[in-house]
Amino acid sequence: MKSGIFITFEGVDGCGKTTQISLLDEYLCGKNKKVLLTREPGSGMLGSRIRELLLNFEGSISPNCESFLFLADRAQHVDCMIKPALAEGKIVLCDRFIDSTLAYQGYGRGLDINQVKYLNDLAISGLKPDLTIVFDVEARESLSRLHRSKDRMEAEDIEFFERVREGYLEIAKQEPERVRVIDASGSVEAIYKKVVKLVESF
Amino acid sequence: MKSGIFITFEGVDGCGKTTQISLLDEYLCGKNKKVLLTREPGSGMLGSRIRELLLNFEGSISPNCESFLFLADRAQHVDCMIKPALAEGKIVLCDRFIDSTLAYQGYGRGLDINQVKYLNDLAISGLKPDLTIVFDVEARESLSRLHRSKDRMEAEDIEFFERVREGYLEIAKQEPERVRVIDASGSVEAIYKKVVKLVESF
Repeated sequence: MKSGIFITFEGVDGCGKTTQISLLDEYLCGKNKKVLLTREPGSGMLGSRIRELLLNFEGSISPNCESFLFLADRAQHVDCMIKPALAEGKIVLCDRFIDSTLAYQGYGRGLDINQVKYLNDLAISGLKPDLTIVFDVEARESLSRLHRSKDRMEAEDIEFFERVREGYLEIAKQEPERVRVIDASGSVEAIYKKVVKLVESF
Repeated sequence: MKSGIFITFEGVDGCGKTTQISLLDEYLCGKNKKVLLTREPGSGMLGSRIRELLLNFEGSISPNCESFLFLADRAQHVDCMIKPALAEGKIVLCDRFIDSTLAYQGYGRGLDINQVKYLNDLAISGLKPDLTIVFDVEARESLSRLHRSKDRMEAEDIEFFERVREGYLEIAKQEPERVRVIDASGSVEAIYKKVVKLVESF
């Protein structure tokens, strides 16, 4: 059924992946490829309704409920957007996917890794990315790119993002075929060249 | 933390549990007990928003997404309504809970029983009912109470509801301490007496 290619972009906030995904989108469109550029969470009509609920609900939402809402969003995204696009032969570029949940909730927040993996697997019903690019950069640098002043950064912030970063590197170690790490500490242009090289070789 | 009592009412559609839960509510209120009468799915503000999404969303919702939305609803219901009520010492009467998912999705629709149990456990984060009353009645009889004409009932309908009924009986066999089966084929008054006797003895 699946004839397209599914590529996900991952990394800590401020790693530059959103810039790079747009550049790759332009590059592939320039080569007359059919591309679907999408992101998690909150894509599609239902996804945006769920996101709206998460952001604007007037009461409190329990953390457990929130997790299931994110999984619902992912399941719908996979079933109603990503799979159909791949079936049409498109290249799907997705900004954050299963590895974000694993790195942030699992490695970052300390939720049970196997539980997060199990729920991820249920939500994607078998659809793993063909290629995942992790944009690796030191937490201190990526946070500074978010224009937060260093004084306001609490020690815990840095430590949390360091755990997320280590989580991504651990995932890459466990699935070296699928997950490739790119050093994202250089210029936008330099990183872009690496991305194109990686995708072309793929 | 928990000082109240948590009782759930289960059974196939038309088994009479909704009538009985109201009667028990009246009975307990008459004895000056503090009672929370609630139901799944769709209780509470967020639950009703999720229910609205499930019922009125203009596009299609993937079955996988739907399952997660129900779990999100349950998690919120447990965390923000049931647990606080139990902490205040209330008697919580809930129309349908985890065993509905197990009986309908697991035994009825044939989803993996262990998977359904696992997801249930995550959604309730440890909060099992103290007592579950299953209202047992033959599928043919319960369906006829729903005022459907027998001609319109397809063979599959009956078979599905029979599987759900058998599922409930199987659950009761596995957890005899928690789950009690009441023969719900008699009059409302006769069944009501059994319910009161069961709850009083409990």
